[in-house]
Order: sequence, then C-alpha cells, then structure tokens
Amino acid sequence: MIKLEHIGIAVNNLEVSIPMFEKLLNTGCYKTELVESENVRTAFFQKRDIKIELLESSHPEGVIAKYIEKKGEGIHHLAFEVENIEIEIRRLEKDGFVFVNNVPKKGADNKLICFLHPKETNGVLIEICQEITSK
Amino acid sequence: MIKLEHIGIAVNNLEVSIPMFEKLLNTGCYKTELVESENVRTAFFQKRDIKIELLESSHPEGVIAKYIEKKGEGIHHLAFEVENIEIEIRRLEKDGFVFVNNVPKKGADNKLICFLHPKETNGVLIEICQEITSK
Repeated sequence: MIKLEHIGIAVNNLEVSIPMFEKLLNTGCYKTELVESENVRTAFFQKRDIKIELLESSHPEGVIAKYIEKKGEGIHHLAFEVENIEIEIRRLEKDGFVFVNNVPKKGADNKLICFLHPKETNGVLIEICQEITSK
Repeated sequence: MIKLEHIGIAVNNLEVSIPMFEKLLNTGCYKTELVESENVRTAFFQKRDIKIELLESSHPEGVIAKYIEKKGEGIHHLAFEVENIEIEIRRLEKDGFVFVNNVPKKGADNKLICFLHPKETNGVLIEICQEITSK
C-alpha cells in the first residue's frame, strides 16, 4: 500500500455538508461527481495529499442511504492507494483478509476499487484503489 | 489546518489488532504509548506522512470502552494538525463549531489536542492538534 488516498464520509445532504466542511477544513470543495453504478454523489476536498470525499446517496436504496439508516452519518471508509490492485488483492487474501468484491470495479475519481470486509478489520471498511492510467 | 495528522481507530485488544494492521498496512507498529489521563493505550503505524493510531481502553469506564460499547470497534476520530491551536479554536468557534473541550489538553505523541463536537460535523469526531515544541 502506497499511502492513504482518501477518507469517505457518509452524509445526508451535500448542499448542507459541503459548506460545513469548507469552513471546517478551511478549503473549498474542488469537484463533485455522480457515480451512477454506486448510486452515490460525491464531493471532494484536498488537504495536502489526502482527499476527503463526502458521499450522499443518489437513490433511497443505495449503499450510503442504508449505511446512514443503520449507523448514522459519519466516516464510511478509508481508501489506500496501491500500485497494482491485483497483486495487493492476492497479498491480502493470502494473509486471510476477505474482500466484499475481489474483482476490481470502477469507482469515483478515475479509480479501480475493491473493498475489504470490515468484520476482518476491526469494523473499519477499507478500500484499496488504483489510478486508471490510459495506455 | 495544515494536514490530516492521524486517524484514531477504537479496538478491543491491541494484542489482536496490532498484528492484523501490520498485515493490512504492510508495515510494522513503530510505537505504543499509554496516555493515563485519557485511560487509553495507543499503537502507531505510519503510511507516508499519515499515522494510524489504534486506541484500546486501559480502564473499563474509559471513553474508548464506552465508545465501543455503544458503536462497536471502528474509526473513532480524524486528527488535523494546526500551527497554532488557540488561533484555530477561535476561527472555528467564530464559524459556529462547538468544542468538547476548548481548552487544549495533553494527548498522545507529544501533542496539545482539542475535540470538536461531532453533532456539528456530520457525526465525525474531529481532533485538532499542535505539536508541543520545547522553547
């Protein structure tokens, strides 16, 4: 794992949370993005080389809507950047970690992403992500 | 706010969680520290310039024990480094944020720390911290 890439935070309403996080972090939101496959609207902030990604459900049955219903708003996941997601999946599976999806899928911000099952990682939902580069 | 300094993760048992996070992050735990004033034992990992701080309660009535009882193991707080904690407290209070403690106290890892009330920050417990420098 190269570094922490971003922190995902589940929120009810981006219109409310974007200005709040702008004040808190003392920096502007630099991008919003709809990820239709995940039923999520995202908003990005940057502090040094770490991104904060706010996540609002774009569908009442989306994963973020269900997460908030169960646990309330709050930190949803930590994402670590890796150089080669396939190699990292194999390394972690060999060490006994279990993936929610061990076939990488396209996430926000031009990334291939996989999630580890949080029951194996002290309740912390861990994403690993690899930047998609054009060849 | 300068940067994200660390992520605090509440765990039941450092003996179990340290080797798990060593495998996950593919890096060794470089320090453990007992913070008696907070009733917490901590263990630190570093990935590039971000620390992961595991938090185990050292007392059955400690804040981490109570947190886990209520919410389960998982991400407990995000800590942002600031240059001058007093100036940052005033800036945030002026913007309507509420502190759990607005008088800085001594935390782990040689820091002065304050916590913002999570009800004002989408359920995310935010710590601001300033390195203690000897004059």
